[in-house]
Amino acid sequence: MSYFKYHVFFCTNQRGPGETSCNDCGAANMQAYAKDRVKALKLNGQGKVRINKAGCLDRCDDGPVLVVYPEGTWYRYVDEEDINEIVESHLANGKVVERLKI
Amino acid sequence: MSYFKYHVFFCTNQRGPGETSCNDCGAANMQAYAKDRVKALKLNGQGKVRINKAGCLDRCDDGPVLVVYPEGTWYRYVDEEDINEIVESHLANGKVVERLKI
Repeated sequence: MSYFKYHVFFCTNQRGPGETSCNDCGAANMQAYAKDRVKALKLNGQGKVRINKAGCLDRCDDGPVLVVYPEGTWYRYVDEEDINEIVESHLANGKVVERLKI
Repeated sequence: MSYFKYHVFFCTNQRGPGETSCNDCGAANMQAYAKDRVKALKLNGQGKVRINKAGCLDRCDDGPVLVVYPEGTWYRYVDEEDINEIVESHLANGKVVERLKI
């Protein structure tokens, strides 16, 4: 059994001026928001959910992105509403959010 | 099929003075070393291997740690020799390194 049921990695990479990157879209803030939401729903902890920051996930053209392991489900999100849906549908209830999947 | 065959996350978290953390053990350097090794063996890229930095993976007592997804294999490593073995055995040949597994 996986140490975390859902281990989520947000690309929070910040590239230099003139280059777009996930963090230009507020990725670090979105990661913090997701972490707070998961905690508020008491989904965090061993055997449950972990929300992590990560370096560049090498899918810049699709960004801002996150990935949910162990399934390897990739999402592109835009705003807190998208994060809410990923948390409530996928992380709380195991239902992939098809409209955000990439 | 998974976007990356092996997606590896190193905890490179640095906590404050008096608190131990993975980066006290040179985690960021080890991540860079692993990335270089994977590139030298031409294992990097979509459908192959990605080596990432991550924030605290919440297994501090077991650190320094890394995790290989999608299988969710966790390792504790000590030195470059351990990294070499993980790269050459697991990432290049799909054989888990039992002696380092946690």
